[in-house]
Amino acid sequence: MTFATSFVPDIRFGEGVHADIAASAGALEARSVLVVIDGFLATSGLGERLATQFAAAGIAAEFFSGFAGEPKLSHVQAATQAARGRDLVVGIGGGSALDIAKIAACAAAAHEDPMHYALAANPLPKAPLKKILVPTTAGTGSETSATTIFAGPEGKKLWIWGRETKADLVLLDPALTVTLPANLTAWCGLDAFVHAFETATNRNAHAGAALYAHAALRLLTEALETAVRSPADMAARGKVLLGSCYAGIAIDNCGTAIAHNISHALAGLAPVHHGLATVLGFEATLAWLIEADTDALAAAARVCGLSDAAMLPGFVSDLMDRCAIVRALPKSFAGFTADDLAREMRAPENQPMRRSTIRDVSDADIDAFAAAMMALPRTL
Amino acid sequence: MTFATSFVPDIRFGEGVHADIAASAGALEARSVLVVIDGFLATSGLGERLATQFAAAGIAAEFFSGFAGEPKLSHVQAATQAARGRDLVVGIGGGSALDIAKIAACAAAAHEDPMHYALAANPLPKAPLKKILVPTTAGTGSETSATTIFAGPEGKKLWIWGRETKADLVLLDPALTVTLPANLTAWCGLDAFVHAFETATNRNAHAGAALYAHAALRLLTEALETAVRSPADMAARGKVLLGSCYAGIAIDNCGTAIAHNISHALAGLAPVHHGLATVLGFEATLAWLIEADTDALAAAARVCGLSDAAMLPGFVSDLMDRCAIVRALPKSFAGFTADDLAREMRAPENQPMRRSTIRDVSDADIDAFAAAMMALPRTL
Repeated sequence: MTFATSFVPDIRFGEGVHADIAASAGALEARSVLVVIDGFLATSGLGERLATQFAAAGIAAEFFSGFAGEPKLSHVQAATQAARGRDLVVGIGGGSALDIAKIAACAAAAHEDPMHYALAANPLPKAPLKKILVPTTAGTGSETSATTIFAGPEGKKLWIWGRETKADLVLLDPALTVTLPANLTAWCGLDAFVHAFETATNRNAHAGAALYAHAALRLLTEALETAVRSPADMAARGKVLLGSCYAGIAIDNCGTAIAHNISHALAGLAPVHHGLATVLGFEATLAWLIEADTDALAAAARVCGLSDAAMLPGFVSDLMDRCAIVRALPKSFAGFTADDLAREMRAPENQPMRRSTIRDVSDADIDAFAAAMMALPRTL
Repeated sequence: MTFATSFVPDIRFGEGVHADIAASAGALEARSVLVVIDGFLATSGLGERLATQFAAAGIAAEFFSGFAGEPKLSHVQAATQAARGRDLVVGIGGGSALDIAKIAACAAAAHEDPMHYALAANPLPKAPLKKILVPTTAGTGSETSATTIFAGPEGKKLWIWGRETKADLVLLDPALTVTLPANLTAWCGLDAFVHAFETATNRNAHAGAALYAHAALRLLTEALETAVRSPADMAARGKVLLGSCYAGIAIDNCGTAIAHNISHALAGLAPVHHGLATVLGFEATLAWLIEADTDALAAAARVCGLSDAAMLPGFVSDLMDRCAIVRALPKSFAGFTADDLAREMRAPENQPMRRSTIRDVSDADIDAFAAAMMALPRTL
């Protein structure tokens, strides 16, 4: 057995640790900071508290909230402009805020447009601005992964990848996640569950990453339903947030698999929440996947408290039920067919996730999965 | 619950990964490297292979082996001199080689004597030389901890601590550990076991570090006896090496406890292998320790496959038997009494390990432990 794991940043976990943001920026010797923050957070009490923190620490801080939904090129360009000349970027919010912060911290260091780095066209600058990442949803794991995603000039999903995008410090504060609505808690948390499961079982899986992937599966299995049903349960919120972070570490080392091929393919057709798309894709493929009957699948099942991998599909569907997942796609998918989805699933940018799947994914499999997905009601 | 974990460096694990040393130095943009390496390794085939690796990579490499036994000030001073003007230090060998490499990489960056940083007298330079650490014994976990130990001008154990001492890259190659004699495999491996146990259960223990401490306990429980009895069993060697590395990560976050107070106190009297001293101190205190009856002790017991913490003393003594540990101190301890040891256990530099112990350690406890230790035969 041989494996490599990429560095894990400093992590601070606990209710209230977001009060350390400005002090942490100071400890990283920052004098001038860009804070990439979701607009609704910036205008909440949090934005004011952060401004007060930075002022008290004597650190110049500009707030950037010029984005909504999944990141677009114009968002990452504007954030990069705003980050130029500064020495640290704070990303605080959902996966989009974190991804924009990561890209801006890299592109601003080299005076290049973000497109310069899209799809690994050019190496990232070796000395990016420092980064403090503070997730307020528990799902993407972007705070500990080396991946970012944004929509390019023609709307296609592009990515910028590299260790230079990774955080210097991650602050995990469950108090920041308690206002997340139940459906988003469920979608994001199940996205994290699928991250953990795919990284523990795909072709790139290895013992080094399984340490984190299994810890994530344990935490999410234990706490996700409670976090959905009892939003103010800080212990459950904390476990889901930590599980999501550990799943991000696992992704950083092993990538994902077929559920994410489907999820990205769906997003290529029409807007859909990434977590919802991912878990629907996961449920549609899991019975097929476990026929691979590998040791890693059996180990993942045990970590979820099951005696056998054959119990996984039932377990996952039950978990989705307990988290009140409605099996449906947005109405905007009404005009698309299974063929449209299958075409996206075969698109070059989605092949790495197809190839990393533990079973060979044939063209017939693609057609069957696309048909299953597009048989879902389009009512959301 | 609140916790902080310090960054975990890049790790590459597997039989043969030490062949990547020069290429990895190149990837870290090193042009001139100091290799701190145990003398017997430097004169083995390994020294020659490394020299060939560096020459082929076009990297200037000097080898430093001017040390033996536990690091002394003269060793770390000489290594610091040799590291000046270079941009990367490789440490390859036992804990001493790694500690010397870590100190040299820091002190050389600031043109200061290592004593300048002893006992945290001054902050370490923010931009130390880069470090690749390659352990060839599996025990200290120095490759992933922020701690170093050396004997000061009067022979007292001193330490230099800080994130600046940590590795950029850790290479874990079980093939480098197969020649370690059985007694050293046992002493070092049990040292790692105690690291894992103490970090999982002391007053500083927390869920963030327990991820690594528990993984280490699992790996060492599973593989240590096999590694001692079947030295060429590469899978067992790998598990012990990885367990030791994970225990080092846990130490980096939680420190140790009473067994290490005893171990360091013993070393203050006369030379003794650190792993042997530690596991003897652990065995002498474990029955007392578990009376604390904490959740963390119960969790550590479960990770070792036990249903109850009360089974831990029997389990540990049996593990020591299976690893053929002789309960004895070196002959050089003949002239010392229990009072001498108790005095060392009360020395200021050993109080942090006393205070971090989950039970309050009274003066009467100290006397009892010292008496138990000095009742051991002095025959090694």
